[in-house]
Parts: sequence; structure tokens; C-alpha cells
Amino acid sequence: MSNGDIFVGETIGTAILILFGAGVCAAVTLRYSKARAAGWVVIAFGWGFGVLAGAYTAAPLSGGHLNPAVTLGIAVDTGQWGKVWVYLLGQLVGAMAGAGLCYLTYFAQFQANVRTTGTTEGTAEEPVPTLGIFSTIPEIRNPVANLVTEIIATVGLVLPILAFGLTEGLGESGTQVLIVSLLVVGIGLSLGGPTGYAINPARDLGPRIVHTFLPIPHKGSSDWGYAWVPVVGPLIGGALAGLVYNAAF
Amino acid sequence: MSNGDIFVGETIGTAILILFGAGVCAAVTLRYSKARAAGWVVIAFGWGFGVLAGAYTAAPLSGGHLNPAVTLGIAVDTGQWGKVWVYLLGQLVGAMAGAGLCYLTYFAQFQANVRTTGTTEGTAEEPVPTLGIFSTIPEIRNPVANLVTEIIATVGLVLPILAFGLTEGLGESGTQVLIVSLLVVGIGLSLGGPTGYAINPARDLGPRIVHTFLPIPHKGSSDWGYAWVPVVGPLIGGALAGLVYNAAF
Amino acid sequence: MSNGDIFVGETIGTAILILFGAGVCAAVTLRYSKARAAGWVVIAFGWGFGVLAGAYTAAPLSGGHLNPAVTLGIAVDTGQWGKVWVYLLGQLVGAMAGAGLCYLTYFAQFQANVRTTGTTEGTAEEPVPTLGIFSTIPEIRNPVANLVTEIIATVGLVLPILAFGLTEGLGESGTQVLIVSLLVVGIGLSLGGPTGYAINPARDLGPRIVHTFLPIPHKGSSDWGYAWVPVVGPLIGGALAGLVYNAAF
Amino acid sequence: MSNGDIFVGETIGTAILILFGAGVCAAVTLRYSKARAAGWVVIAFGWGFGVLAGAYTAAPLSGGHLNPAVTLGIAVDTGQWGKVWVYLLGQLVGAMAGAGLCYLTYFAQFQANVRTTGTTEGTAEEPVPTLGIFSTIPEIRNPVANLVTEIIATVGLVLPILAFGLTEGLGESGTQVLIVSLLVVGIGLSLGGPTGYAINPARDLGPRIVHTFLPIPHKGSSDWGYAWVPVVGPLIGGALAGLVYNAAF
Repeated sequence: MSNGDIFVGETIGTAILILFGAGVCAAVTLRYSKARAAGWVVIAFGWGFGVLAGAYTAAPLSGGHLNPAVTLGIAVDTGQWGKVWVYLLGQLVGAMAGAGLCYLTYFAQFQANVRTTGTTEGTAEEPVPTLGIFSTIPEIRNPVANLVTEIIATVGLVLPILAFGLTEGLGESGTQVLIVSLLVVGIGLSLGGPTGYAINPARDLGPRIVHTFLPIPHKGSSDWGYAWVPVVGPLIGGALAGLVYNAAF
Repeated sequence: MSNGDIFVGETIGTAILILFGAGVCAAVTLRYSKARAAGWVVIAFGWGFGVLAGAYTAAPLSGGHLNPAVTLGIAVDTGQWGKVWVYLLGQLVGAMAGAGLCYLTYFAQFQANVRTTGTTEGTAEEPVPTLGIFSTIPEIRNPVANLVTEIIATVGLVLPILAFGLTEGLGESGTQVLIVSLLVVGIGLSLGGPTGYAINPARDLGPRIVHTFLPIPHKGSSDWGYAWVPVVGPLIGGALAGLVYNAAF
Repeated sequence: MSNGDIFVGETIGTAILILFGAGVCAAVTLRYSKARAAGWVVIAFGWGFGVLAGAYTAAPLSGGHLNPAVTLGIAVDTGQWGKVWVYLLGQLVGAMAGAGLCYLTYFAQFQANVRTTGTTEGTAEEPVPTLGIFSTIPEIRNPVANLVTEIIATVGLVLPILAFGLTEGLGESGTQVLIVSLLVVGIGLSLGGPTGYAINPARDLGPRIVHTFLPIPHKGSSDWGYAWVPVVGPLIGGALAGLVYNAAF
Repeated sequence: MSNGDIFVGETIGTAILILFGAGVCAAVTLRYSKARAAGWVVIAFGWGFGVLAGAYTAAPLSGGHLNPAVTLGIAVDTGQWGKVWVYLLGQLVGAMAGAGLCYLTYFAQFQANVRTTGTTEGTAEEPVPTLGIFSTIPEIRNPVANLVTEIIATVGLVLPILAFGLTEGLGESGTQVLIVSLLVVGIGLSLGGPTGYAINPARDLGPRIVHTFLPIPHKGSSDWGYAWVPVVGPLIGGALAGLVYNAAF
């Protein structure tokens, strides 16, 4: 794969992933959305099928990593580091593009965050905090515990992905991406409770940058004090998964 | 594929799609339905599995587009326009037939829209607006924003579909339709909040025509002022996806 | 396939289907169940994955019809009627066995239907009607409308099943059963609202017979006046699907 | 497969299974979790996708049983008992490791079980009982009925798994694990109501041991009086499934 194909594939694929993922968070969070308050199962499946959409689209060009933790886990396992920077660049650019596309998709809803009359919910008109649509926020702010959660959840993502390649009838097959997307649904359902499961540095950092600059009314803080956790945690988790895989398989 | 096979395939397939899709909207909307108020996750999976049912049925005859935006995206990509009119005709006829079948399936429920005693919900007896069962209604009426939402959501549908053909082990395989159906679930969950995700001109226009003429008690407006948005938006989105696919892959 | 294999396969497979299907209805209906009131999405997926469990188990022995409407649709299409009676016998016996297994699985819950103190729901202690766990009950009792609903929903099941055999990469493959099970989830979500989607004469008749004789406290009526609808409707639907398939494909 | 590979595969795979499974129970049970009270559908899919994650990871090393009842059913069917002890040892060690990983993932939430101010739920501050995150608890305590429930549910798991190997296009294929994971979702939805579906002795016993020793604030009883039911019931069910399979197929 050429550097150009990798960059284009990762950019398009990660943009689709974040469009769907940030999109489902917007769908359940914002007023005047048909999926308002639709619950955690909707969020988990929305992110999972975002992986399905993005990874299948990127697969023919770049293999569809869409996640620096996956790229890192593969590099640690294989020892091949030459293309890593291309993957990471595409992932970050794509994540920012996807966050922008989510903003455009829900533009009227974001603007209505300051509307003060005519809602379907009586007079309750506090602006909704918007950062959770773009980036993760821990339920309990405890950097060490949050970091451990992200590390474990990312191992739970990357170790199975590495093992999928060994499963008979699954290696290199189109079914593999489907299974990864359901795996991501499962991580959301099971391990997303404490921190909102970044498990992907680009997924958290790119949209946070975009959130910082977007002119959303009453958007609230971009919470840069927490931003290192969902970057460092998944990178440690991805590398750890590569090491465990190398040792055990 | 002959014109006859294409027409029959698209008609039957789109009828099944709309029977399931309008059906799930009836199921969660109408009184005296076991799925009353069952929520957004039910709607998204109902439409997605409608694609599964319709597209697998149509696949051997027409390839199972069921959507003018998909047909347009493929035509823009391949440059082959000769059969496009057959696909579109079958899709529109099928969508109207499917809306009629949904009406028959929920006939007693539609008739009961005026029943004034003996409900399970006490004395709350306002007729339910029925257009949302057939066609899409935006949460915030803003034609430009609604159009942008439909364009982005349709690109999110058609671009992955075009890319699926390139994925190893997925091209021409039966698994591809399964994945498209889950992709449609994902679009519903993630991008359906603002406009109800038409992402298919036939899906919106055909049932709206049927809604205009059906003798449903207290059916409410057919809202023709909005009808151009879910036709034009998905067509632009489908064409755009074809162009992006051609350029990037 | 020998008559013996067909009978054993259909009996075991339909028993598993009804164990899961009646089981999920018990799970959301009965007091002291962890899934109490878990909603329509749980019912639809429970029945669908019951098809998955039962049909995969029966597939090597009998092909896994588990449904007289499917058997009838195939016979109408192929003109081969010699083994139909073996399929139907196995399906009815299996459905009765499955209903009995569901009763054993939820035995303590069925017995507790008369418990009058110590519930988690305060003093609300009306016995729960139990027929809906075993057989279908229409929301609005209108035999003609109910029959039409069952016919359309069964066509929506059997026509795609017949077409699956023609799809490239899907004919005779193990993936086919997975897709049928998701199709059944979709029918439940979309078309189950009015009558509870029998779409299978054995699924409704067998458990109704068992319900009539089981010593469940305060079990309520077995409603034999309605019993012909979920038998006749699906049989008409299955035959109709066979005719449409023969004409169109 | 060497004893070492089997042990490592079963340990890693079962650890992932329990991390996801106990994780989803923590996610819906504990305060300050984003999935708090997200319902039964989340639990059933969380456990099912835990099987997906764990079994795919273990498959290349040990075949991915992850469950003594599955190992026993296969041994009864094939008559090969030599490696059974290695499987069981790996499963128990893995289940304990997975419970520990779940504790680390939700560490801050477990610690907050005694927090008495600043909650999002006003002043309602009773500690949450934590055993249900680790092991199963029956809704109605009736050892015979609970045992029957676990036996039937385990037959519903192991008999289809044994039959999958015979399905055309499914034997030895990567799709098989996907289908087993959806089967587990179905068992949860349909048969989990009375006892919480252990259907796996290691899944219940390992985490119960860990729960006994973990320093969780206000953790409540580890309920050893019930512990034999979810061990004995699934073992009987697994052996029974092996016998039925041998006789019928």
C-alpha cells in the first residue's frame, strides 16, 4: 500500500467513524433529535456500526485501522514501524473531519442549544453541555483509575483484533470487520461505564480540537485537563496488547 | 439482467423494504400496537432489517439497489446510465406498494385512530399524526440544514456500499447485504436525529403519495412543502459519493 | 434425508425455537424475572435468536424449517409434497415440547403467579395473564384484519427465505440461517404490532394446546376462539409466497 | 494443541469473557456508570459479545471453549477426556483473572459505593449490592427449580454448539464463533430471567471466589449457599447435551 492510499483510506475511514460516533452522541444528547435520551444501547451500537462503516470503506486502501492504538499494537507485534506516521496522520485528520461533519449534520440542533421557547419539554431550557458529543468525559474524575480503565478496555479491543487474523476462515476475510464492529459494541456496553471508552487517541483528540474552535452556542468547556488520559491510556493498551499477543500466540 | 427482471426485483424488494420500514414506524407510533413507544433502537433496527429482507429478495433479479441514491451513485461511478430509469421506476412503484401493504398490516390500528373509549391509556385520545409512519418529518424545519443532513447521511450510506465491492472476501458475496443492512441501522442510530434519515428518495416520495390518498381517519397533513428535501438531498448525496469514490479509490 | 432424521430434526429444532420464544415472553411478562418489562426489542431479538438456535441445530438433520408455513411455501414452489407430513408432525410435537420446557424453566415464576406478599412491587398482586407467553393475542380483535396481518407478515418471512437460496455465496451456506434469524427479528419489530406475529402455525397451536392442560395458577383463558387465525393466516401466507416466488423468479 | 496452548488460550479467553460479562453487570449496576440502569438487553448483548471477544481470541490456541459445560459436552460426545482437566484449569484461572480485571476497570465506581454526598441521585445513598456483578443470584430461591433452569439453559447452549459443526459452510469456519455469541445473547434474553443464566460453572465460581476476597466497600454477601447450583446445573446440562447429540445426530 502506498503512503497516499494509506493516508486517504485512514482519513476517509476515520472521518466516517467519527461522523457516526459523534453523531450518535449528538442524537441522544441534543434537544430536537428523534433519538433524544435513547440510551446506552443506542450509543454502543452507533459507535460499533461506525467502525463497520468506516473500516469497510478504508479496508481496500489502508486495511482500516482508524485507531492509533491498533496501529501501535500491530507495529509492536510485527516490528514494522515505517508507515506508522502515515496511519496516525490520516487518523487525526480524519477524526477532525468527522467531528466537523457531525457538526454540520446536527447544525440546526447545535444552534437550537440556546433556543428559549417552544420546546417539547416545557420550560426546562438549560443549554446542554456539548463536549460529550465530541470527546470522552469520566464519570468519576480520577486520572489513575481512568487511565487503568482505558488501558484495560484498549487491550480488550486490540488483543482480539490481533488474534482474529489467526482464526480459520477469518484471516483476510470480509467477515473480520463485521466482527470487530460487534467487538466495539461489546466494549462500549461492558467497559464504557467509567470513562466513555475512548480506546482510540485520535477519536478523542481530534474532535476535542474541533470542539475547541467550533462556534457552538453555550458549548461549555473543552476540558483539556483530561485530554491526556484518553490519548496515553489507549496507546499503552495498544502496545500492551501487541506484547501479550507476541508472547502468547 | 433484463429490464423485466430489474423492474420486478426492485419493485418486490422496495415493497418489502417499505413494508418493514413503514411497519416499524407504525408499530411504535400507533395505539393498540404491541411495540407502542418502543423507542429509537427499534426503529433503526426495523429499517435495517427491512433492507436485509428486501435486498436479499431482490438481489438475484436486480442486485437489490432499492434506492435511487444507490443507483445514481453506481451510475456516476461506472458511467453506465442505460438501466437507471428501470431501477427508479421499480423503486417508486415498490415504495408505493410497500406503503399500501403497511396500511393493510396495521388496518385495524389505523381505523382505531379515532376510537374514543376503552383505551389502555385512560382518556388521552388525541388522534396520532400518521405522516411520520410513511415519510420523514424534520425535528427543526430548516430546509438548508435539513438538506445538508440528508446529503451527509446519504454519502455515509453510498460511499461504504461502493467500497464494499473492493473488500477481500466481500465482493459479490452474500455477506455484503447483511453488512449493508447493519450500516443502515448505524445511519439511523447516528445520523437520523435531525430529519429521520430518508437517505432514499423513493422511500420518502412513494409513501407520501400513498399517504395523500389513503382514507386514514384523522391522518393529518401530507406536508408536501417539505417533500423536495428528502428527494433532492439523497440524490445529491448519492452522486457525491460516486464522485468521491471515483476520485479516492 | 430419511423420515426419521426429518422428524427428529424438526422436533428438536422447533422445541428449541419455542423454548427460546416462549421463554423470552415469560422473561418479560412474569414477576420475579430479571427481564421483567424489558420491552419489545427484547422480545423480537429473543424470538430471532430462537430461530438461530433451533434452525442451526436442526439444519444437518432436516434443513431446519421449524414452521409449517415455510414447509408449505417450499412445497408449493417445488411441487414436492411427499415429506410435508413428516415436517408438520415434527414441528407440532416440537412446539409442544418447547412450551413444556419453557414451563419448567420458569416453573418457580409460574407458581409465584399467586404469591400475595413480599413482592418487589408493593401490593399490586393481580395474577399476570399467561396465555401471551405461549400463544399470540391480537391487540384489536378483528378476525379479517388479524388474518390479513398474519398473511402479509408470513409472506414477508417466506418469500425472502425462498430467495436466499439464489443469492450468490449464500445458497446452502451456514450464513443463511443467521440471516433468516435476523429477518425474524425484523418481522417482529416491524410487523408484530397488531397480532404478535405468529407467522408459524405450529408456534401458536402447539403451545396453546400445552397451555390448555398445564396446571398454572390463575393462568386465564386459552382463547380457542382466536386459535384458527394464527394457523390459517400463516398457511395462506406461506402458500402465497411460494406462488409469488414461482412467478417472479 | 499442546497443553500449554490450551491453558494459555482458555485462560486469556475466559478472562476476556468475564471482563466483558462482569463488566456489563458493573456498567448497569454501579452508580457513576454511563450505562447505569440500561436494562436487560444491554446485559444480554454484553455477555454475548464477551463470548465473541474471548472465543475468537482463544480459538487459535485452544478452540475457545471458555466453559466447562462445553468442554464436558464435547468430551461426552467424543469420548476424549485426556485434555479436559487442562481446559477446566484454564477456565477457572481465567474467570478469576477476568473478575479481577473488571474490578480494576470499575475501581473508582466500586470505591464510590460508600460515597455519601454529591451524587446525581439526590440523597438516595444505599450501597449497591455487588455480588450480582460477579456471580448469579436467583430471583426466587428454589434450589430444585433453579437447578432445572440452569440445566435446560445449558442444554440450549451446548446442543446447538455441537450441531454447528455439522452445518454446511459452518464447520471450522470463523463465522461459527459469531453465531455462538448471538446464541448466548439469545439465551440471556430468553432463559436468563429466573437465575441470571450462569450456564457456565467457571463463569460463576471463579468470580465468586474473587468477590469473597476483594476489598470492596459494603460489598454484601458472597452467598456461598447458592454456589453449587450454577456449578452442578451447567455440568449436568453440558453432559446431557452431549448425550442427546450422540443419540440424535
